[in-house]
This record gives sequence, structure tokens and C-alpha cells, in this order.
Amino acid sequence: MELLHIDPERLQRRLEELGTFGRNERGGLDRTTFTPAELAARGWLKQKLGDLGLDVRVDPAANIWARREGSDSSLPVIAFGSHIDTVPNGGMYDGALGVLIALEVMQVLEERRIRTRHPLELVSFSAEEPNPFGLSTFGSRAVTGKLKREHLAGVTDDQGRPIDEALRSAGGDPERFEESRRDPQQLAAFLEVHIEQGKRLLKRDIPVGIVTAITGIYREEVTVHGQANHAGTTLMNDRNDALMAASEIMLAFEAVCRSHPADEVVGTVGKIVNYPNAANIIPEKAVFTMEIRGKTREEIQEVLDSWQQRLTAIERSRNCKAERRLLLDQAPAAMDREVIDICREKARDLGFETLDLGSMAGHDATHMAALSRSGMLFVPSLDGKSHCPEEESRLADIEKVANVLLHAIIALDQALE
Amino acid sequence: MELLHIDPERLQRRLEELGTFGRNERGGLDRTTFTPAELAARGWLKQKLGDLGLDVRVDPAANIWARREGSDSSLPVIAFGSHIDTVPNGGMYDGALGVLIALEVMQVLEERRIRTRHPLELVSFSAEEPNPFGLSTFGSRAVTGKLKREHLAGVTDDQGRPIDEALRSAGGDPERFEESRRDPQQLAAFLEVHIEQGKRLLKRDIPVGIVTAITGIYREEVTVHGQANHAGTTLMNDRNDALMAASEIMLAFEAVCRSHPADEVVGTVGKIVNYPNAANIIPEKAVFTMEIRGKTREEIQEVLDSWQQRLTAIERSRNCKAERRLLLDQAPAAMDREVIDICREKARDLGFETLDLGSMAGHDATHMAALSRSGMLFVPSLDGKSHCPEEESRLADIEKVANVLLHAIIALDQALE
Repeated sequence: MELLHIDPERLQRRLEELGTFGRNERGGLDRTTFTPAELAARGWLKQKLGDLGLDVRVDPAANIWARREGSDSSLPVIAFGSHIDTVPNGGMYDGALGVLIALEVMQVLEERRIRTRHPLELVSFSAEEPNPFGLSTFGSRAVTGKLKREHLAGVTDDQGRPIDEALRSAGGDPERFEESRRDPQQLAAFLEVHIEQGKRLLKRDIPVGIVTAITGIYREEVTVHGQANHAGTTLMNDRNDALMAASEIMLAFEAVCRSHPADEVVGTVGKIVNYPNAANIIPEKAVFTMEIRGKTREEIQEVLDSWQQRLTAIERSRNCKAERRLLLDQAPAAMDREVIDICREKARDLGFETLDLGSMAGHDATHMAALSRSGMLFVPSLDGKSHCPEEESRLADIEKVANVLLHAIIALDQALE
Repeated sequence: MELLHIDPERLQRRLEELGTFGRNERGGLDRTTFTPAELAARGWLKQKLGDLGLDVRVDPAANIWARREGSDSSLPVIAFGSHIDTVPNGGMYDGALGVLIALEVMQVLEERRIRTRHPLELVSFSAEEPNPFGLSTFGSRAVTGKLKREHLAGVTDDQGRPIDEALRSAGGDPERFEESRRDPQQLAAFLEVHIEQGKRLLKRDIPVGIVTAITGIYREEVTVHGQANHAGTTLMNDRNDALMAASEIMLAFEAVCRSHPADEVVGTVGKIVNYPNAANIIPEKAVFTMEIRGKTREEIQEVLDSWQQRLTAIERSRNCKAERRLLLDQAPAAMDREVIDICREKARDLGFETLDLGSMAGHDATHMAALSRSGMLFVPSLDGKSHCPEEESRLADIEKVANVLLHAIIALDQALE
């Protein structure tokens, strides 16, 4: 039998075609969830899936599922896909690539008339990206049962449009929202292809990334209390400057993250607001967010512990007080050992070098991992860029990863019970 | 002759009376310039000055002058006073104390029928404090000719009220604004009593501060440019974090100010704005103001030079760029040697200990020093507080400083030609 492979030109054409939905004058995509551009992209995708003879269904969370029956109807589903919404002024690869590779895999199986034992389902999750409703990974959280009807109560976008209305416009059904939930028994595995959004593959010139775990995200808001005072009449030694204390605390945080032995532990202070924020008043209060990402809870805790030690010393030396408030504690999600091994084996069979890596961004697979054995494949990102018009991946890399997915699904179908 | 002295109870009564204008529910004074409360306070003051038989005049910049003729009409004026406007939620001493002590001095001279050789003028300057028109030390800058008609063009408060209209409501005349300017030949000396707004007198338990110079104020806006990036997928070593670079630059600035040998050199970062300021995006740009105050240009320059060295090193090590923009460069103003000596001598005669100090805040005397020999006396501030409802000075200290002013004016009248 001739080796099965996907059609890279067809995939490229579809990437470009889907990339016209929401295109703005800066060359980016404005296709945030439930906007007219995103609804049009959904229509395009459903058309393509239907053309292939798949059984297309939109669940109450407006996730799009396209099913291809297997030979044994008693077996659970092998699902694969990603999302087609974007951030504002985003790129044409983040999310869309994973859905279009899934479509390509379905088409190759269909064309080659390959019957799997397990039913296969392509999924395009609703609202993965941060969006004006404040609910990211919306669709996958609905599928895993983490997002419930009650979480939608009163939710609107920044224009006051209710989420219920937006959901209906995409074919969802807020009243039956919790019926989006899939039973773990129904799912054999979930696989997602995504762009890396970093430079690790590119730097090593490796085409296939095999994700071992998806980062946990831990976020706090830190309020540093000092004392407001006159910028002229208060001598340096009499000051209790909240912003200077905050600066030292933030740099200590950076230093702790930098010195952590795991390369993939990162920490960020993305936001700071200073009070009263006037040129001639010594700051009274500075409020900043700190975020830690790591592949395990232990890594995150190590950063927190080292930082707390330094923080205490700074509080003492500057006679100020830092108040910490938890904002988010999303656990790291390990990918399934069996899925990882099969992906690595198939890549090796195809002659492609692979790199095991952690995903430093959250994904729908983070949540799906709680429901089913899951795996992710990464495609190198040029210059590590994402969430911007310059986001790009090379077709040669895309083709390799798509072929790994195709063969991994077939292998999983044979290996899994 | 019985030793001349002011009446502390009368002074205290007037402080309390003037302190009712603009009183808010938090116990502070809302008496920013040209507000109804401030206009009412002006009316009260003019009434008191008129009752004393002084010749009261409001100049085109709405400064209130009250003249007491001397025996030699060919001699220039000895002027003294301060201001009666406050910051929002300010206290009852900043400014008002200097005007009421001047009033008390005039009253004692009148009651004791002491005829000076020089004409004396009490002055209450318009709009000394920062105000919604963005023009502080408004009145004294008009008197020295630094503030001109053209600077008022298009100026409004934050409600859109034109400065011309506000000025007229206080008895000023925008069309004849530049006639506020006084000829240096007309002025023999200017003296101002003010609260210290710091703790130097209090810490040493000294009642009379003799100001040797008023601080220069140098202000820049610094923009630190980094690169925005994903907070998860960008490893620590791949970052170009504008906020972390800014933190290091701000701390280097603080360190340079702290280590400067002159106690009275201070530096402040009062304001910072971060971009795009989102928890999960590495900051692209941080913009902060830095301010240096010092008694001489050399001190300020020394801070700038040391800081620039450190800044260059930080730019290099962090691969970021800091862009500096001058906002304000107000020269330090030395007080007059002869006025200083006479004040010190009179305090000693009265048995009061004195401390020479620099004024770390700007004052009307900063500008008057460019026009005439000038001097300032400071009264200790409890807990160093000012610009707040808790601002307070003890009557015992106030009385001492007022008596020093009274005797210094008489001595100057005799000493000056």
C-alpha cells in the first residue's frame, strides 16, 4: 500500500480561504468569537464538512462536531480539532491550522476509503481565545462540564450584548447548555494540532513538537502599600514609597523565575497601576498582577516559595506591606503517555525529528485532558510570533505535522480499546 | 520701649476663621483658586485689611495687595505675604498662615503707631497651588513678568471654564494682565512665612527655620521601550520586558538620589503608565516621570550624570531603549544673604534657636527672588504633614516665627537703602 499522506496544497488553499474571514486592513484577522466574521467562518467550515459527507452537528455551546462512523459502534470516539476564533488583529494559523489539518485528515481517510474501528469526530471549539465576554476556552470547558449554565447568567460583551443571544446566533442553545457535556465513556482520545507560539522548535530546526504537558497558570494581584507624601519636602530616608517597593518586589520575582532550573517556568508582571500617580506625590499604593506558568504544580510552588522569602525581606527593609490576592490557579495538564508515544513513533516512522516540550499557553486540550486521554502536536512558529498579523508557519512543517496526526490517529484506532 | 510682639490668640482666631472657608466633611479644605470658597475667603481677607485702614488693591492677576505708607515716599516697598488658596482637601496652614502673620504684623505696627521709612505691602498671591487651570504660582509669576497674557490664551479648567472668566470673578483683569508686573526698582525686599512641610525642624525641636534657598525642580518623562509578547510562550531569556527595565531604571534613580551627599537632594518617580497593561502580555512600553529637587543646579546635574551612567548600563544589559523628555527645569532660588542674616539675628535677640534649611517645595518666593532680595521663614509642621486635613503647626512655634518676622521687617526697614 502506498504511504498515506495529506495534500499540502489543498491544506494551504483552505488556510488562505479561511484566512479571508475577518481580514482587516493591517493584514490581521479580527475574528473574535460570535462576531459576524466568525459566524461566516463557521458557515464556511460547516459547508466543507458537509461536502465531505460527515455528520455535522452544533452542540448547545455552539461547538461544531463532524462525525465519521467507525466499524464498531460500541467503541468510543477519537476526537481531534482546535478552534477558528482569533484574538483581535490575530493571525491565520492560531486555531484555524488545527481545524484545517483535522479536516484534511478526514478527507484523506474518506478518499482512501479507510474505515477506522472507532468513530472519529472533528471538533471546532467555540470561543477559545480571550473574548469580549470574558470567557475563554468556552467550548471545551462546556464539553468537560466545567462551564455551566449558571456561569452565563448576566454575562454580556463590552457592548452589552448578552452571551445567550450571541450563542444562539452561532447555533447554540443556552437553555440546554449543559447538554454540551460529553461523557468520558464516549471519548477514547482527543488530539489537537496547534502552532507553538514560541521559538523552541525553530531554534533547534525541528519540525514536530510533541507536547508532554500544558502549563498551569497561576495569577495573583499584589497590592503594595506605602505612604503618600510630598515629593519635595520628604527626604529620601523618610519615604515609604509604594512604587519603589513594588519595583524591587517585581524584580525579585523576575530573578526567581529566571533562576529556576526549568527552562519552561516563566513569570510575568503584565499590569501595574500606581496611586495617586502624580509627578509630585510619592506613591501611596501600587497594584500589579503576577503570573507564573509551569508544567507542574511543584515548579509553580517553588517560584512562589522563593519569591515569598524575598518579598518578606523587602517588606522589612522598606517598611511596607504587600497584600496578595489569588486571581487564577489553573492546574497544569499532563498529556497522555500512550498518545505521546504513538505520536513520537509515527513521526520517527515518517523520518521526522521530534522535540518533547511543554505548552506554555493554555489550549482546549488543557480541559479535554480532564475528560479523555489527550495529546497535542506543535508546528514551529516563524520568529515565535503569534496573536499578530505576522504569525506564520511554513507549509513544509505543517505538512509533516499533519502527516504525523494522520498516522497517529490510525495507530491509536488500532491500539486503543 | 516694651518689646513689640504679636498677639497669638488673635492670630489663632483668624486662622480658625479663615479655616472655615471651603471646609469639607473630611475636615480638609477645598479652596482651590477661583472657586466660590476661595472667592469668599478673598472677600473676608479684604475686609480685614480694609478694617485696618490699609490701602487695598487687587491687581490684574487678582493678587491682593494692602499698602501701609512709610515716612519716605521715595523708598521702595518691603513686601511680605503668601497665598490663601489650597490644594483639594488641603489644610488650614499652607499659605494662609503666611498671609495671616503678615496681617498680624501690619496690625501690631498700626496699633503701636510705628511708622516705617519704607512703605510696607502685604500680598496674598493668586493661585499658588496646583489648580485645575494647570498654572501654579500664578500670581507671583505674573508679578515677576514670567507669566504673560499669551500664556492664558485658551486656558480653561477641567470643566471648560476659561481662566479669563475665573480671573475676572476674583477682581482680576485679563486684558491688562501684564500690568501686574512690578518694577524691581519698586521693591526693597520680599519676605514669606510658610509651614515647613517636612520634619527637619520638628526632629531637632527648633521653632524657627531660616530658608537659605528654594529647591530647583527638574522633571523628565522617561519612556522605556521593550517588546510585547505572549506571557506564556516567551521564555525568560527571550524577553524584552519594558516594565522590568523601567523598574531597574527607577531603582537606580532612587539609589543615586539616596547616595547623594546632600541630604536635601530628593528624587521621585510619582507616575507610571504601562502598556498594554494586561496580565498575560509582556509589557511593550512603560512611561514614568522622574523629578529631582536640589538647592543648586550642580546637585541636580550630579544626580542626572550618575543616573545616566546607570541607565546606559541597564539599556545595554536589557537590550531596551529609554527615551527622555524634559518636562520642567525650574532653577533653584537662593535667598538673600542680608535678609537671612537679619532674620537670624532677630531670632537670636528674641532667644529662639534657628535652623538654616533649603525649601524642598516651590513657593511664591521662588519667583519673587528674581525680582527683589527675598527671604523665607519656616514654621515646624507636626509630623511633617501638609496638603492634607491633618496639616498642623503649634501656636507656640507660630508665635515665635511671627515675632521674628515683625522684628526682621523693622530691622530691614532701618538697614536697607
